[in-house]
Amino acid sequence: MEKTYIFGHKNPDTDSITSSLVMENLERKSGNTEAKAYRLGKINKETGYVLKQLNVQAPEMLEEIPEKAKVILVDHNSFAQSIQGIENTEILKVIDHHAISNFETKAPLFYIAEPVGCTATILYELYEMNRIEIEPIIAGLMLSAIISDTLLFKSPTCTPKDKEVAEKLAKIAKIDIQSYGMEMLKAGTDLSDYTAEELINIDSKETEANGIKMQIAQVNTASIEDVLKEKANIEKAIKDFMDKNGIELFVFAITDIINSNSQIITLGRTDIVEKAFNVKLQDNMAFLPGVVSRKKQLIPPIKENA
Amino acid sequence: MEKTYIFGHKNPDTDSITSSLVMENLERKSGNTEAKAYRLGKINKETGYVLKQLNVQAPEMLEEIPEKAKVILVDHNSFAQSIQGIENTEILKVIDHHAISNFETKAPLFYIAEPVGCTATILYELYEMNRIEIEPIIAGLMLSAIISDTLLFKSPTCTPKDKEVAEKLAKIAKIDIQSYGMEMLKAGTDLSDYTAEELINIDSKETEANGIKMQIAQVNTASIEDVLKEKANIEKAIKDFMDKNGIELFVFAITDIINSNSQIITLGRTDIVEKAFNVKLQDNMAFLPGVVSRKKQLIPPIKENA
Repeated sequence: MEKTYIFGHKNPDTDSITSSLVMENLERKSGNTEAKAYRLGKINKETGYVLKQLNVQAPEMLEEIPEKAKVILVDHNSFAQSIQGIENTEILKVIDHHAISNFETKAPLFYIAEPVGCTATILYELYEMNRIEIEPIIAGLMLSAIISDTLLFKSPTCTPKDKEVAEKLAKIAKIDIQSYGMEMLKAGTDLSDYTAEELINIDSKETEANGIKMQIAQVNTASIEDVLKEKANIEKAIKDFMDKNGIELFVFAITDIINSNSQIITLGRTDIVEKAFNVKLQDNMAFLPGVVSRKKQLIPPIKENA
Repeated sequence: MEKTYIFGHKNPDTDSITSSLVMENLERKSGNTEAKAYRLGKINKETGYVLKQLNVQAPEMLEEIPEKAKVILVDHNSFAQSIQGIENTEILKVIDHHAISNFETKAPLFYIAEPVGCTATILYELYEMNRIEIEPIIAGLMLSAIISDTLLFKSPTCTPKDKEVAEKLAKIAKIDIQSYGMEMLKAGTDLSDYTAEELINIDSKETEANGIKMQIAQVNTASIEDVLKEKANIEKAIKDFMDKNGIELFVFAITDIINSNSQIITLGRTDIVEKAFNVKLQDNMAFLPGVVSRKKQLIPPIKENA
């Protein structure tokens, strides 16, 4: 049997890391003994907390992918968000919950996407469909992904199905959702020892619309003001990043997960942002009340106005 | 509730027509009472036979799609094979068994694809997953699609799952697979009253590789020689089609479904075809022994050599 590489997107969040590990488990239990989870970047603090609590090792870092390698993508489909050379691999499966863009295969494949809040919710259904039992640690990994992606069910991306699945998983994992979830999210908001350059890369996604290359980054915090102390350095890091990567619009969202609002710092084609949110920028910034979801509240209006 | 348009690809084959009807049934049984099946082209003779045998009305022809309409695609994902204006609709779901290409959405959606021989095989699983009973006529429609797409299980695209599902459906529909299947396929090989222009359009798909626009058409027959009597007219029709649509390579496969071989007539960038199949064309033709599947045996080598 040939090796199968499983990984989520670059700048991995908790869903990308845990879904790789969960998919490895599901594949192995389905007979694909050569399935192996990888990661495409540094483990963030929230994910670090999850892995420590559940006593699970982080997947190995994948630096490059061999040509024609067999691959399973979780939590993403866009080649721009995947590993370099992905277009020369054989993609066997995709398990995802994002819009489809910049994705193409030569051969038919197994592709399942649903408009739910989290990849783990779909993985839960695959365990059900294949009648494979979910072990407590695997349940804990999936639950953590749902808590992370839905900000403890508060994000508009959260669907009734995500919540229902999370409750079933919490029972299997014997985890109290509220207390564990708050600790986990709080661990992710500890931004104290990141440099500005690291901050804009913690959870950053490249996208494109109307031929314009855009980068939308996001950090979660309990205090927007704390992050803004670094504003000058953040702007410099954004400028350097844009120059280096040919990005025409950069949006950096600082999301207050306690009050469910975001402050954005944006550079480049900011006319698009002003149109998208019907705001006038001040000092390259705007406050977006109620905005917490990049996928549902940031990317669609930006793309539509590009 | 808003209307939902359901349709398969242009130049519809039996899978595209029956899967639209079946998906309408599944959606309605799941509570989407505004779901309605459509077709993007003429009903071919094989499909005509199926609808007559099962006493089912053909879906209505869809001439244009309103902007922002809610859409479900079956049996295709490529915008090039869909209705004009598809990029301005809201695609809710895709149920398909093809490679993903030239497909993009703004929002997350329900997308399920599997590398099986027929869309109906996946639809069967969706009935199972949602615990919805399959009525005999619906089973007959799905069975017909599997017989059509797999050439009665003889095509290399046929998977064990397609066969297994077909056998279950045959029981529900109370249909004898072999005798019904042979009659159905034979009905499709009656090409007698098609003009050359119609022949190359019965089942024709546009695709692209390396920036080269290609059209791969196919007809099923019990006698390649009979079809070749029209060779001069077919070549003229191909030339006209290529000029009108800016196609750089046209491959017309005449597939002998009794002996499982194909004769191709090809015009344009035929150097690609010669490389792809390691053949030397004679009079714009080549005989490809054992080749019956466009998806598995024609398109991949052509794309790889483009």
